[in-house]
Amino acid sequence: MSTTGIIASGVCHTDQEYLTGQFRQFPLVLGHEAAGIVESVGPEVTKFSQGDKVIPLFLPQCGECERCLSPKTNRCRKNWANTQAGVMADGTSRISYKGQQVYQFLGGVASLPVMVLRLKQPRLRNVPRVPCLASELSDSRPSWAASRIIGVDVNPERFEKARLFGATECVNPNDHAKTIQEVLLDITSGGVDYALECVGSPVVMNSAFESTRDAWGTCVIVGWSESEAINIKVEKILMGHTLKGTYFGDWKSVEDVPKLVDDYMNEKLKLDEFITDQLPLEKINVAFDHMKKGKGIRTVINLWPEETTPTVETV
Amino acid sequence: MSTTGIIASGVCHTDQEYLTGQFRQFPLVLGHEAAGIVESVGPEVTKFSQGDKVIPLFLPQCGECERCLSPKTNRCRKNWANTQAGVMADGTSRISYKGQQVYQFLGGVASLPVMVLRLKQPRLRNVPRVPCLASELSDSRPSWAASRIIGVDVNPERFEKARLFGATECVNPNDHAKTIQEVLLDITSGGVDYALECVGSPVVMNSAFESTRDAWGTCVIVGWSESEAINIKVEKILMGHTLKGTYFGDWKSVEDVPKLVDDYMNEKLKLDEFITDQLPLEKINVAFDHMKKGKGIRTVINLWPEETTPTVETV
Repeated sequence: MSTTGIIASGVCHTDQEYLTGQFRQFPLVLGHEAAGIVESVGPEVTKFSQGDKVIPLFLPQCGECERCLSPKTNRCRKNWANTQAGVMADGTSRISYKGQQVYQFLGGVASLPVMVLRLKQPRLRNVPRVPCLASELSDSRPSWAASRIIGVDVNPERFEKARLFGATECVNPNDHAKTIQEVLLDITSGGVDYALECVGSPVVMNSAFESTRDAWGTCVIVGWSESEAINIKVEKILMGHTLKGTYFGDWKSVEDVPKLVDDYMNEKLKLDEFITDQLPLEKINVAFDHMKKGKGIRTVINLWPEETTPTVETV
Repeated sequence: MSTTGIIASGVCHTDQEYLTGQFRQFPLVLGHEAAGIVESVGPEVTKFSQGDKVIPLFLPQCGECERCLSPKTNRCRKNWANTQAGVMADGTSRISYKGQQVYQFLGGVASLPVMVLRLKQPRLRNVPRVPCLASELSDSRPSWAASRIIGVDVNPERFEKARLFGATECVNPNDHAKTIQEVLLDITSGGVDYALECVGSPVVMNSAFESTRDAWGTCVIVGWSESEAINIKVEKILMGHTLKGTYFGDWKSVEDVPKLVDDYMNEKLKLDEFITDQLPLEKINVAFDHMKKGKGIRTVINLWPEETTPTVETV
């Protein structure tokens, strides 16, 4: 057992989805994009020390099940169901309030709770702001160099940021009379090779799927949705379109995340630019309002009292 | 231009689907699983000679478009749309009757029409019975050795054949109160790694998809369906299930089919065992009746007059 002080956490659309969804147990601590500092460790903790800077991941790996042992997935058998159910890997939550159990959404870390650290190696230092690292990187792993990256959003204010992150062009569905999939098929002469859906909307998922190219187009669903189902045209499947999903970008916790942090530290990976607002916890509802209005990219909630904010060493 | 005499053609569920479907133009020549012998060649044909035994494929490759040049697909851009529209690659059909154009379903070869041969190299000799070669082989290309192959059919008479082709066990959905996907999840402790849907039924497609294992299960749709859409649970996609399709087993005509024929000739590939009935053309409706009743596996229609059936040389 160890305790960790959380410095900050991003507020993600998935928090919103779960907050308003029908499938979760309440009361629930949200927040699954956090970074923190180890405050204290119990005698049984050997891999962390006080002061270690850590990222508590919302999809930990047990390292022992057949999924953890396979390179094909990061969806740890032991942790998946429990994480979805709002408890930790051992089936309990670490938080209670006046004797009542409080659930932890995806490990729910956006407070100052006692938590079991998931990172086996304390390699993650200096990570004060690493929100939504995984989701945004989905399917960037195949070694393909995209000559065109098309950002699609109904909020044109995001286009400048999209270009900063590599979009070569941006399209606003509201600017067109045709459906967005028709527009994308037109401007790419038949569709995109890969479409990433990052919103969590079944309508957008369908548009993304139908925006892909016949013969080998692949649509990867990144955005979480509690919605039941999407309609997929059989003919598209037979024409060679593939539908698949990613969760936490298919990255594994111990194996992959330290490399991503290194990339961030070496300025190969942009993350700071995602953050458009930083707010104290009291103003968390402003973050949800931003999301509903499609404003900004990512709001980060600062949880560490300002007067004690730790200095960040650059290693 | 050359003319080919068709020896025999399989009758496939896809013929039935198109015959009763709403999207095709009639009159239409069915039959897309044929084998034949070159009867005559025009002066412009250099790659075939009279007497060559050939398989006219229903998904030819032009060899020049970006899809033909990619190893990722066999869905030739030039041929796909035309084949679906019931015409040849040049946009015309080769058949007319009393002045009226007759369409060719997937190249419609199950008569004795004049046809343009698609095989560039006449390597295919002695192929008197190669029905449904491609479809049945879908997704057998990944180099994985399946320890269990589960055949699923509502007709238990097919199980003996299924075992002959490698099924290690067979399941009849009608024997169970649970849905077939629940049964499969049970007996495999969580689902199959790969599910192949070979029927062309949206209901079965959904069952096949949901029979796959969390984290990396892949469902490959083989069976053709004119139906509009299937419902896919978003959560399954996010949990790591992949949905994709294959057409003609993803085999390429010139590159792959000769190798398959070699495998057949070398007894590495079973095909004769698929054939449960052989009928003359006059009895073709019996073949469709068999199909509707789920009887047998594949009926082959013999089109070459018996008294002139060519001797088959074993090379």
